[in-house]
Amino acid sequence: MAASYTHQTAGKIVGGPHCTRELAAHLRLFGDIKSALIVTQPSMIRQGIVEELRRQLSAAGIATEIETGIKPEPTVQNVEQVYDRISGQAFDLYIGLGGGSVLDAVKLLSVLATNPASVSEMIGTDLVGQAGIPTVMIPTTSGTGSEVTPNAIVTLPEEQLKIGIVSRHLLPQLVLIDPVLTVGLPQPITASTGMDAFTHALESFISNKANPLSDMFALESIRLISRSIAEAYRDGSSVTARERMLVGSMYGGMALTSAGTAAVHALAYPLGGKFHIPHGVANSMLLPHVMEFNMDAIAEDRLACVAEAMGLQTGGTKAKTADRIVAQIRSWTKELHIPQNLHDYGVTERDVAPLAEAAAKVTRLLNNNPKQVFVQDMQALYHKLLP
Amino acid sequence: MAASYTHQTAGKIVGGPHCTRELAAHLRLFGDIKSALIVTQPSMIRQGIVEELRRQLSAAGIATEIETGIKPEPTVQNVEQVYDRISGQAFDLYIGLGGGSVLDAVKLLSVLATNPASVSEMIGTDLVGQAGIPTVMIPTTSGTGSEVTPNAIVTLPEEQLKIGIVSRHLLPQLVLIDPVLTVGLPQPITASTGMDAFTHALESFISNKANPLSDMFALESIRLISRSIAEAYRDGSSVTARERMLVGSMYGGMALTSAGTAAVHALAYPLGGKFHIPHGVANSMLLPHVMEFNMDAIAEDRLACVAEAMGLQTGGTKAKTADRIVAQIRSWTKELHIPQNLHDYGVTERDVAPLAEAAAKVTRLLNNNPKQVFVQDMQALYHKLLP
Ligand SMILES: NC(=O)c1ccc[n+]([C@@H]2O[C@H](COP(=O)([O-])OP(=O)(O)OC[C@H]3O[C@@H](n4cnc5c(N)ncnc54)[C@H](O)[C@@H]3O)[C@@H](O)[C@H]2O)c1
Ligand SMILES: NC(=O)c1ccc[n+]([C@@H]2O[C@H](COP(=O)([O-])OP(=O)(O)OC[C@H]3O[C@@H](n4cnc5c(N)ncnc54)[C@H](O)[C@@H]3O)[C@@H](O)[C@H]2O)c1
Ligand SMILES: [Fe+2]
Ligand SMILES: [Fe+2]
Repeated sequence: MAASYTHQTAGKIVGGPHCTRELAAHLRLFGDIKSALIVTQPSMIRQGIVEELRRQLSAAGIATEIETGIKPEPTVQNVEQVYDRISGQAFDLYIGLGGGSVLDAVKLLSVLATNPASVSEMIGTDLVGQAGIPTVMIPTTSGTGSEVTPNAIVTLPEEQLKIGIVSRHLLPQLVLIDPVLTVGLPQPITASTGMDAFTHALESFISNKANPLSDMFALESIRLISRSIAEAYRDGSSVTARERMLVGSMYGGMALTSAGTAAVHALAYPLGGKFHIPHGVANSMLLPHVMEFNMDAIAEDRLACVAEAMGLQTGGTKAKTADRIVAQIRSWTKELHIPQNLHDYGVTERDVAPLAEAAAKVTRLLNNNPKQVFVQDMQALYHKLLP
Repeated sequence: MAASYTHQTAGKIVGGPHCTRELAAHLRLFGDIKSALIVTQPSMIRQGIVEELRRQLSAAGIATEIETGIKPEPTVQNVEQVYDRISGQAFDLYIGLGGGSVLDAVKLLSVLATNPASVSEMIGTDLVGQAGIPTVMIPTTSGTGSEVTPNAIVTLPEEQLKIGIVSRHLLPQLVLIDPVLTVGLPQPITASTGMDAFTHALESFISNKANPLSDMFALESIRLISRSIAEAYRDGSSVTARERMLVGSMYGGMALTSAGTAAVHALAYPLGGKFHIPHGVANSMLLPHVMEFNMDAIAEDRLACVAEAMGLQTGGTKAKTADRIVAQIRSWTKELHIPQNLHDYGVTERDVAPLAEAAAKVTRLLNNNPKQVFVQDMQALYHKLLP
């Protein structure tokens, strides 16, 4: 447990089915907004959600432009290209409507507009000098929790790395948590992003930086996701399950802002940077194996809290509790058809050593892990995904 | 349950024993701060806490002035007098170090400095036009949760009323949650402010505006306070118990910001406005009686959640669960020596009718109550405190 701990989040959070329809009403409190850039992804246009939003804003006297140039897991170059294209126009507001990729990019576009620095110059913690253009975040995956974190993750292709920019200036002024927007998420993305959210909560709870604030968010996130991930996967149209997933992933973001993620994320980063495995997929593949590895280093009472929050039977020895937790994660892996074979992504045995070496450099996250992870451990963990 | 719901809180929250020592370090992120006004109460000067803070800020190049003119449960006139006294000086920052009375006053001083309006013109919701001078809130009671709410409560003596100003501009930029500062709280204030915090959580959870966000804060607040209030009272020097109380009261503030309080608070307001009964005392006196009255209107599964969070035995009929909850509240009333006689505060039988009439006007809170409270009900409730 850390001696002192912090919590930081978005200015205002609005939740509930169809709350996106209230966007214009909430914007009134922002003062005079005349124009907004909506950064989004093609699926939101196809589902008619962007058109609905434009009509609503237009009726409130707000002119909108649409930008769909951000790619999944965006590179620095991708973000800067989009910035170059839009930087001629002055917008009062940036609205991010999409998964973590879109939301992270909007954070960066917002501060690129007000700071003389490039993205690369802002990589690290607290290196963004000025507040950006105000932002609104509307997540459409239940995964990253990016809508409430001060983090943006970008890919550096030349270094085959994913890297973070952390600054309170990346936090949005307004967040809309509308489960209806996630009803159209395809099953594999529901599964992988949902397990990413679960990983945020679980890694935050077992983190060496865990604290009374992060614990509450982490446990509630574990509770909500455990209760609803299988249902959200089986029946994507269940707004109740979708809402639990979305609120749960937001709490996961709040937990990780305070306590940080750990070894699962450290091992996932090179899989994203080198092999372009989507973030949620990489994490959900690794989760059961890394957790099995970690179990003996987690305090007994903390493990019991996790089991209870997951709705598992409690009582018995610590080893029994650990078994139950790992068994439940494995059973989700089966039920949600989480990939378990890195060969399918072009990874071979020869890649294991360099992958482990790259992961070993992510000390910022490895330092949070309750158990020290040596390079041989990492190799063994990657090997488990090369059956 | 509300269809859409909101959450709004302080910019950054830092917690942990002695975290007040880190104030200057956190202020660095605010930009260039040269001068700060510390608004506080005599007990903080006596305990040497103000002097420590001044030394710390002075070492960081921040000049400080001290203001101790805010009275407990301040009137509008009190706040405006203090404002007149300080308004000649320009401060970069206002620091509130005290109980809810001091924190609420600092919120108002901050926006008085930047808005042309008087306090009376800001009474109501969203009537503060401009952001104020940045504020830091350091609570020294575990009660109101004011450090994280957009509310300030003032007394209007001529109308014998307590009234609220609600605006996002009242939220502070930084909050320090340092349990060590509450170690010197006298037993009766630990008891009454602690039960006020519990009331915030419980009323938010049973509120008609309860929602998935407020529920998490409310239940965690109930958990933390139930586990620690008796210990904090018996052994005020237990930093663990003090920390649970302080984090619990902060979560109570987060819950009520989203879901609102209800009949206990509505009935308490006239006791404060007319008979100057401190807020925490009025609430804690009323709590067991109003809850007993409410019990049959609360859904069975919600009652079970409350009982579980309170650490009570669960299972059995709904009536049994309700009994257990009320019995626990009553047992705290005894153990913490909560006053139960309004005669001691100068209230007589003849005051009951006008008190009930005044409480009936607090419709903003009564509308949140799960059960309709008629004027006769209110009279009966006040009568229970006139044995
Ligand atoms: N900022 C943070 O705190 C944080 C935390 C974790 C991960 N991340 C980053 O977030 C990115 C991943 O975000 P993600 O997992 O949300 O995936 P994503 O944003 O890349 O989306 C995955 C795919 O799903 C599609 N999609 C999204 N919502 C949809 C919907 N409602 N209906 C249909 N299709 C939809 C997207 O268009 C995309 O093709 C990575 O770059 C990762 O590194 C950031
Ligand atoms: N803003 C909100 O959301 C909100 C919510 C509830 C109540 N309130 C308001 O807050 C006020 C009550 O605040 P409160 O209950 O914290 O009481 P308070 O601030 O009036 O303090 C009560 C007494 O305790 C003393 N004290 C405080 N901290 C101390 C410490 N650490 N050691 C020794 N003495 C200490 C104070 O000087 C005072 O005499 C009321 O005006 C009430 O209406 C505001
Ligand atoms: Fe993640
Ligand atoms: Fe209160």
